[in-house]
Amino acid sequence: MALHIYNTLTREKELFTPITPGHVGMYVCGPTVYNDVHLGNCRTFISFDIIYRYLMYLGYKVRYVRNITDAGHLEGDRDEGDDKFSKMAKLQQVEPMEIVQKYTLGFRRVMQLLNNLPPSIEPTATGHISEQIEMTKQLLANGYAYEVNGTIYFDVEKYSKEENYGILTNRKLEDLLEGTRELGGQDEKHGRLDFALWIKAKPEHLMQWPSPWGMGFPGWHIECSAMSNKYLGKQFDIHGGGMDLAATHHTNEIAQSKGCYHVSPANYWMHTNMLTVNGARMSKSLGNGFLPDELFTGNHPLLEKAYAPMTVRFFMLQTHYRSTLDFSNEALQGSEKGLRRLWEAFETLNKFAPVNEQASEAELDAKVKKLVEGFDESMNDDFNTAKVLANMFELVPIINSIKDGLIAANALASSTVTLLQNKFKAYLEDIFGLTNSATGNNEVLGDVVQLLIDIRKEAKSKKDFATSDKIRNQLAAMGIALKDEKDGNASWSL
Amino acid sequence: MALHIYNTLTREKELFTPITPGHVGMYVCGPTVYNDVHLGNCRTFISFDIIYRYLMYLGYKVRYVRNITDAGHLEGDRDEGDDKFSKMAKLQQVEPMEIVQKYTLGFRRVMQLLNNLPPSIEPTATGHISEQIEMTKQLLANGYAYEVNGTIYFDVEKYSKEENYGILTNRKLEDLLEGTRELGGQDEKHGRLDFALWIKAKPEHLMQWPSPWGMGFPGWHIECSAMSNKYLGKQFDIHGGGMDLAATHHTNEIAQSKGCYHVSPANYWMHTNMLTVNGARMSKSLGNGFLPDELFTGNHPLLEKAYAPMTVRFFMLQTHYRSTLDFSNEALQGSEKGLRRLWEAFETLNKFAPVNEQASEAELDAKVKKLVEGFDESMNDDFNTAKVLANMFELVPIINSIKDGLIAANALASSTVTLLQNKFKAYLEDIFGLTNSATGNNEVLGDVVQLLIDIRKEAKSKKDFATSDKIRNQLAAMGIALKDEKDGNASWSL
Repeated sequence: MALHIYNTLTREKELFTPITPGHVGMYVCGPTVYNDVHLGNCRTFISFDIIYRYLMYLGYKVRYVRNITDAGHLEGDRDEGDDKFSKMAKLQQVEPMEIVQKYTLGFRRVMQLLNNLPPSIEPTATGHISEQIEMTKQLLANGYAYEVNGTIYFDVEKYSKEENYGILTNRKLEDLLEGTRELGGQDEKHGRLDFALWIKAKPEHLMQWPSPWGMGFPGWHIECSAMSNKYLGKQFDIHGGGMDLAATHHTNEIAQSKGCYHVSPANYWMHTNMLTVNGARMSKSLGNGFLPDELFTGNHPLLEKAYAPMTVRFFMLQTHYRSTLDFSNEALQGSEKGLRRLWEAFETLNKFAPVNEQASEAELDAKVKKLVEGFDESMNDDFNTAKVLANMFELVPIINSIKDGLIAANALASSTVTLLQNKFKAYLEDIFGLTNSATGNNEVLGDVVQLLIDIRKEAKSKKDFATSDKIRNQLAAMGIALKDEKDGNASWSL
Repeated sequence: MALHIYNTLTREKELFTPITPGHVGMYVCGPTVYNDVHLGNCRTFISFDIIYRYLMYLGYKVRYVRNITDAGHLEGDRDEGDDKFSKMAKLQQVEPMEIVQKYTLGFRRVMQLLNNLPPSIEPTATGHISEQIEMTKQLLANGYAYEVNGTIYFDVEKYSKEENYGILTNRKLEDLLEGTRELGGQDEKHGRLDFALWIKAKPEHLMQWPSPWGMGFPGWHIECSAMSNKYLGKQFDIHGGGMDLAATHHTNEIAQSKGCYHVSPANYWMHTNMLTVNGARMSKSLGNGFLPDELFTGNHPLLEKAYAPMTVRFFMLQTHYRSTLDFSNEALQGSEKGLRRLWEAFETLNKFAPVNEQASEAELDAKVKKLVEGFDESMNDDFNTAKVLANMFELVPIINSIKDGLIAANALASSTVTLLQNKFKAYLEDIFGLTNSATGNNEVLGDVVQLLIDIRKEAKSKKDFATSDKIRNQLAAMGIALKDEKDGNASWSL
C-alpha cells in the first residue's frame, strides 16, 4: 500500500499524490514566541518531524517550512487587545524583540532536546511585513476586504456567496454565525465572522509598520498565507498544525488564499490531536499543564520524577497523532521501560551475525518478516507510529530468545536478520529520531565502564569478591546498572 | 581606573560614559549567512562576547544587538553582481531562504561551541525591509540621496560639503577618491564614492521586494543603520565589528545616520584586528584559511591535530583584540597546555580552606592581591584580556607551591584566598566564558574514573601491579591521563 494521509478537508484517508513528482512542500504553523513553548506544541512539532523524516525516507525531496510568529498574534486570538509580544515586553520592561529572542532561543533548545530536525526554512512574521501588505492589497483589489479607519477586514459574507467558508471543518455559515457574539455599537467590522488582515496601531503600540493605510501591524492569519505562498507557491502539498487551529486560523488561511489567488492553498490538511493529563484537558488554569523543562527535570507537583526528552518523544510516538494523548506518571514510566527494552533488543540484534542462508524455522522466519514489513505499511497508513512500535514489541521477545538460546541461532534466514537490523536502525534512528543517550552519546564513558567490567571479571575469576562487589555497588550508586551475561561478560545501562 | 575604551573615531583611549547611566546599547555587525562562518568572524564575536560579559560584570544592563545579514550583500561588497544568497541558492538549486537557514544554523552551532552568549536581539535584513525603505525615503527627503532608474544612491559629494565623510578612519575625501576607480560610461552613479541604498532588481533576481521605486532590494550598508536605530535609538554607546568594515561599511553607516538624523550614531567605535596563519594573512585563495570545524576536527593540511573550541577561545583571549593574532600549531598547543594548567590551578585553589586571618608572608600576600586587582585594571584598560591572563599565569606557580607545601598554607590571609578564588571563578567562567569540558561537564565520567583510581590504589597496595598498570595504560589509550599525587591518590585529565 502506498502512502495514505487523513485529510481534514475531505474527512478521508487519501492516497498521497504530490503536485511535483518526487517533491513535497509542507507548511506547519509554528510557535508564537512570547512565552515558553508548551507541550501540546511539542507534540505537534514531533509529529510533523516524524512525517518530514518519513517522507525523506520514502525518497522525497521535502521543503519543510515552519514559521515563527513574532508579531500580530493578539491576546485571545481575536482582533482585540494588545499583541502578545508587546504585553510581555511591557511586563518584563524590554523591547518586544528581546522577548522574541528569549523565547525563540528557548524554543530551539527544546526542539533540539527532543531531537526534531530544523525545518528547511523558518520564516518570521516580522520578516514578511511587505508580503502581508501585498496580499492584503490584493484582497482589497479582489473585493474580499474592506477598510475601516486604517484597519482592513476580510469580508466573510461576501466570500461566502462564492465559496464555502466553513469547508475545512465542514460547518455551515449559519452554524458558525450562531457560535459568534453579536456585533456591538463600537464594532467596526461589517460582519460577525470578519477578521482583520491589517490592524491600525495606536501611537503607543510597540510594534508597528508603515502601510498604505497608515501605521499598523498584520493580523495573525495573513502571516501564514503570505509565507506559505512565498516559499511553497500558491498551491502546495501538506499544511499541518494543531487541531485547535483548524476552526479559525486555517479556515481563514484558506479564505485568504482563495480570495487572493482563486485556488485552495494545500491539498492535504493534517491536524494533531490534544494532550490530556490524567484524563483531564491540559491547561494552565487547572494547574495540570507542565512545561517541557518541568517534565525533563521532574520539577512539578504532578510529576513523580524527571523524564528524559527521548522518553517523552518515544511516549508521544506510542499514540497515533490523531488520537488524544494522556500524560500520567504510569504511562511515562512505562515508556521509559519500553524504550530501554527496545534499545537493548536493538543492541542485541546488532550483534547477530547473519550466516545461515536458509531459515531453520520457516514459520518464525515468515512471522518476523511480516512484522518488519508491517513497519512501512503502518506508516503508509497515515503515519501510524503506534502500530510500528507494537510490531517492534512483538519482535523484542524473539530477539531476546535468540540471544538466550531459547530459539536456535539459525532460526532466521540471513536475509531476514539483515532486514530486521536495517529496519530497526532506519526506524529507531532515522524515522523516529530517537537517540540512545545512555550509551551512544558518550564513547569515553562507555570505554571507561567497559574497563571496570573487565577488571570486575578478573576480580571474580580470582575470587576477589570484595573488589567485584565494590565495582557493582559503586556503579549502581552512580546510576549505572550492570547486568551479568551468561558468558561472564556484563552489559550496562544508565 | 574606570573603564576606558579605544575609540576608532578619535584614535584615543577614552573614559567610557554611557548615554543612560547603568545601561549600555551595543551594536555589532554579524555574519552574512551565505556560507560557513570564518575564523576571523569568530574572533570578532568572541571579542564582543567578552566585552558584553565584562560590561554585565561591571553591573551594566546591556542591550546587545548583533544582526544577521540575509539579503542585500553583493559579491565583492560593491553595488555590482548578484547578491551572495541568490548566487549560492542557484548553485545549490534551492530557495535563497534555505541557504539562509542552513548557514544560520551552522553559525549558531559554532557560536554555541565557542560558548558565546546569544545577543539580546538578532535582527535580520529581510526582517527590516520596511525600516530600510523608510530610512532611504528620509535620506531622499533630506537631499542626501538621488534616484536613477529605480536605484537610490547616497550622494557622498553632497554629504561631504557639510560633514566629514572619512571621519571614522581619518582620511580626506581627495585621498578616498584617489583610491576608487573612475566611473565608466555605463555607471549610473553621480560620484565615485556614492553607494546604493536601494537597488532595482532585474525580473529574474531571486530576492526582491516592492518599494516606492519599484521592485528591488536594500543595499548592504543601510541594513545596519536601520536596525541599530530601531533597537538602540538614533544614538547609542558602542558600535563594533571587524576592522575590515571600518573603511567602507561603517563609514557609510555614519554617513547614512547623520544624513538621516543629523547625529552620529555611536559614541564608541570598536574594531577587532585580523587573523594571520604562520605569519601570512589568512585567506581562502592562499589555502591557509581553515574553518572553525576544520580546527575542531584537525581536518586541514596545515593542522597537526584537532583543537577543542575552548582551546581556540582561550588562544584568542591571549592576544589583545586590537592586535593581529597569528595561528600556528605551536601557539595553539601552547594554549592547550596553558589552559589545562589554569584549570588545574583553579581546582587546586578551590580546595584551599581560608582559615588564617593574618598572612604569615605579608610580602607574598601583597603581591598576590596586586596581581588579582590587576584583572579589573587590565580589563578597564580597553579590555586587555591578555594582561589578565599574564597575571593569572604569575599566580599559578604560587597556587601550586602552596599545594605542594613549598609555601606555607597560612602564607596568605583568608581574605586574599577568598579574593583569589572569587576572581578566578568570575574571570574564567563568567567573563572569559571558558568551560572545563574535561571534568566539569560530565559528572558520571568523573565518578567512574575516580572508582578506577580507587581500585588501582587498592591493587597497588596488594602489589597487584598487573591490574594497576592495566588501569593506567587503558585509560591512557582512551585519552585519560592519570597523575600520581604524593598522598597515594591520583588526579586525572582528559
